[in-house]
Parts: sequence; C-alpha cells; structure tokens
Amino acid sequence: MDAGLRRGLVARDNAPMNPQLRALAAEVLSRVSGNRPPLGRPQLLGCLENLCLLRSAEGLQEVPVAELPADLDLAPLIDHTLLKAAARTEDVDLLCTEALAHEFASVCVNPYWVPHCARRLEGSVVRVCTVVGFPLGANTTRIKAEEAREAVANGAREVDMVLAVGLAKAGQWDLVRRDFRTVREAVPEAILKVILETCLLSDEEKIKACQIAAEEGLDFVKTSTGFSTGGATEADIRLMRGTVGARSGVKASGGVRTYAEALGMALAGATRLGLSSSLVVIQGGTAVGSGY
Amino acid sequence: MDAGLRRGLVARDNAPMNPQLRALAAEVLSRVSGNRPPLGRPQLLGCLENLCLLRSAEGLQEVPVAELPADLDLAPLIDHTLLKAAARTEDVDLLCTEALAHEFASVCVNPYWVPHCARRLEGSVVRVCTVVGFPLGANTTRIKAEEAREAVANGAREVDMVLAVGLAKAGQWDLVRRDFRTVREAVPEAILKVILETCLLSDEEKIKACQIAAEEGLDFVKTSTGFSTGGATEADIRLMRGTVGARSGVKASGGVRTYAEALGMALAGATRLGLSSSLVVIQGGTAVGSGY
Repeated sequence: MDAGLRRGLVARDNAPMNPQLRALAAEVLSRVSGNRPPLGRPQLLGCLENLCLLRSAEGLQEVPVAELPADLDLAPLIDHTLLKAAARTEDVDLLCTEALAHEFASVCVNPYWVPHCARRLEGSVVRVCTVVGFPLGANTTRIKAEEAREAVANGAREVDMVLAVGLAKAGQWDLVRRDFRTVREAVPEAILKVILETCLLSDEEKIKACQIAAEEGLDFVKTSTGFSTGGATEADIRLMRGTVGARSGVKASGGVRTYAEALGMALAGATRLGLSSSLVVIQGGTAVGSGY
Repeated sequence: MDAGLRRGLVARDNAPMNPQLRALAAEVLSRVSGNRPPLGRPQLLGCLENLCLLRSAEGLQEVPVAELPADLDLAPLIDHTLLKAAARTEDVDLLCTEALAHEFASVCVNPYWVPHCARRLEGSVVRVCTVVGFPLGANTTRIKAEEAREAVANGAREVDMVLAVGLAKAGQWDLVRRDFRTVREAVPEAILKVILETCLLSDEEKIKACQIAAEEGLDFVKTSTGFSTGGATEADIRLMRGTVGARSGVKASGGVRTYAEALGMALAGATRLGLSSSLVVIQGGTAVGSGY
C-alpha cells in the first residue's frame, strides 16, 4: 500500500470521522458498502475541501489531498454514459457489460433503452440511469414528469432531468421550482439529478438553480448535457459544491475524458462523474492521455 | 415583372397544370390560397424536376427552372425556427412577430413554448410547429405520442418528431414503423413530419425510413435536427423527394443559412425549409452572403 495512504487516518464504519465528509459521501457509501472491498487500488468516494474519503481492503480512510496515492479507483463515482442518437442494441449491451465488469455506479442511457438495461443489470450493483427532457430542457413540466415516471416504472433508479434553461435565463425561478418539484413528486424513490447546462448560465444563475434544487429535495446538481457549447469545469464544480454543501451530490459531466480530469473534478467536490470514456479514466493515474 | 416569369405558363387555380407538381405543392397551396397575393416578388411554392410553381398577383404559374426570376419570395416555405435551450420569452415573442410580418409557414419552437406561441399567433396564417423526441429520438414511443398529443392540445398544428435513429441503424424497421404509426394516431389532425437525422444514416436507411413514413401517412420527411454532426444537403433532398414522389412533403433543415442555399434546397425538391436565419434568406437573391 502507498505510503501516503498508510499515513491517512483509518476509520472503520463506526469510527468518528469528519461529519461533513461523511455526509457528502453518504450516497456513494450506501451503494458500495455491500460490495466486496477493493483488493487493488483504493476507491475514491469523495472529497471535501482538503480531505478525501478512500475505501480499501482495510476499510474507510480519510486522507488529506496532499497525501493521496497516485493511482485511485474512481469506478464507484462513474455513470457510464451512452446518449448518442445512433446507439444500437449491441452498443448498449457493451455499455452494460463494461459497467458490470467495473462496478460503475450506473449506466446512463436514453429513455428508450431503460427496459433493456434494467433486464441486463437486474440483481447487480449497477443501476440504470436515464435522462429526461434531454438535452434541451424545454419540454413541458408535465411531459418531463411523465417521462421520469415511465422510466422508473421501466427500471430506472436514477433520473437526470434538464433545467428549463430559458426560464432560468429569464429569472422565472418560480417556474423553475415548479418544474423541479413536479418531477421530484413524480419519482419520489429515484435518485433525481438536475442538469444545469452550466455553459449557458451565469454564476449567479448556477447558484440560484443549485439552491432551489437543494430546497426541492433533488439529490444531485449536475453540470452539463454534453450536447451544448461546453462541459464541466472544476470552477463550476467548486461553485456548485460550495452552494449545496454536503446536502446534495454534485455530478461533473461533459468533456471529462482522462483520469487527471476526472480526479480534478472529484477533488473539486464532484461525487459523481458522467463519462463516456470511462474505460480510459479507470486505467487510472498510469494511463497516458486519452484515446478518445 | 421579370421576363423569365412572363414567359412561364400562366395557370389560374382551375386551369390544367402538371398534376405531379400540383400534388407536390398542394400543401403550400392550401395554406397560401386564402392570403392576399404577393405584390412584389413572386412566391416559390415548389419544384419538381425541371419545373417550379410560382404565385404572383397574376395567379399561379409553372416556370421552367432555367427561366426562373433571379429573386423569389421563399416565405411560404419557411418554418421560422428557434430551438435553443436558452430561448427566453422575449426571443420567442420576436420570432412570432417576424413570422407574422413575413407570413412564414410556421414558427418552430420547443414544446414548452407552444401555448405561448399559440396565443400570439391566434387568428393568423402562421402556424405553431413543435418538436417531439427532440433532438435524439431515443425517447419511448409512448412519450413521443404523449408529447405530440399535448402539443396539439396546446395549439400546435405541426409536429416534427425525431426518428429512433438507433432502431434504423440496427435495421429494426418494424419498431420504426410502430413509432411512426403511434405518433400518427396520436395526432391525426396535425401535419406530422419525421426528422431522419440524415447525417447519421446511409442512403439505404434514408430511403427505407422515407418509404415507411409515406406508408404510415406522415406528411413530411425532414433531414436534420440541427443538433447533430451535419445538416441538409441537396443530394439528400433529391434522394428523399425521389423516394416519396409527390406523396409527402420534404423539409430541408440544419445549416441552411443563405438565399442561395435555401433556393437550392427548393430546386432539389424541398417544400419546406427549417431556418433560423429566415430574415437573411428572405432578403432574396439580392442579399449578399450571410451575416449569421
């Protein structure tokens, strides 16, 4: 084991830990705690300011950022994502196979593919995640809610809805709140994320949207669809994490293609990573660049 | 009046004309015949092979392509389009104002904006057009149908649905047909178009999708969402027109930004043009380039 990791505080599940960090990592802990502990690289479960939570065969450990091992397993944070219009059954099947092999958090697919993925992943730790009102967010609230409800009925456990960006730009925050609340009520059991499409928003608009999302009980705020003019940035992740604190998850998505970029997002406060190049990223700190 | 136009056959509404050209232009004729005749440039209503149908103060005229006036009014063919995620009320209002001023065929907006546009355009010749399953086409058939039904209830008269591209790529044409048929049945009164996203399809797949669309009673086949890797090409318009004959409309959309490009699409067989740069295009043959 890496010297840096050995120096970290070892904390068993019941031991006292930084309560904020534990709160921030609660969602990922709830998913991985039943899995076999990692035999190889320690898993990164989340970071808050200067402290990260790792999981290894020896248990949970709080490690200062400066003492992190060079090579971490990010798999538990990854939504393994395929949202291309032209995706076929064989592409979606491969996505599921890869997600099972690496125990990613989920596969993230378009709504059409949810029943198929739910069958493929049944009984596994890998969830089905889908998108709603995607990628423009300019559908009616009723259709967003109905699409979410149907997806959950079809086996999705996570739903990534898109903010009504135009309403946010126009300052119509009451309508944004109603949009969030209606979808939240439609799928009370699901992990619900809202995609802000940060590249289209001012910092003030990002903050306001994050505040309303947290107030309305959404589980995650997420940066990007991957279909607009820009993707996740560490600055946006820090802004979003700074706004929601440990109350909500933060998902970095769009343009994150290497281990270094993915780790940077986690260090900035992301507790979920939406990646289509997951296999490159999980090669870890030793992987050279991006083949994508 | 232009010499070329004077040489054209003048045909009043009841006069004999090329029946194929008349069939091809039937949809646009049904929309413009109640409007005041154009006092300025003649309107282009459609072209079939080497012959175009024009409408001027003198009535309808069949004109060979070689004898077309240099400057035509394309307004009756234009779906004035704003599908950006960040569109605000003021942007949509401007779109409606412009469409009314130029008597475009429709405004094409995201579903969220349909009720607003329906109020703004009530009693006018400009229709509300919206998009369904847009832009990825990978929503469930049930949600596509429900989104279409709601849009029509909200005042949309035209619905542009997106092909389930992945099903087409996989050759699952029975499911493509079911997708078309279900949405068709959901909105029997609406003009229903299907966006093929031609940049993702082979010619064989484009032809097959056009055939099924025509068989299932869809009113138009349309090239592109404007959100993928490519837009309309004259070659695709010719292929689509050649496949559907005069049975269906053909809409060119995506990347058409100048009068010359728009005219080229009409000459290739398009009877509708999805444009966001409509105001540039309707400056006509005298406009220099594109400011967009």
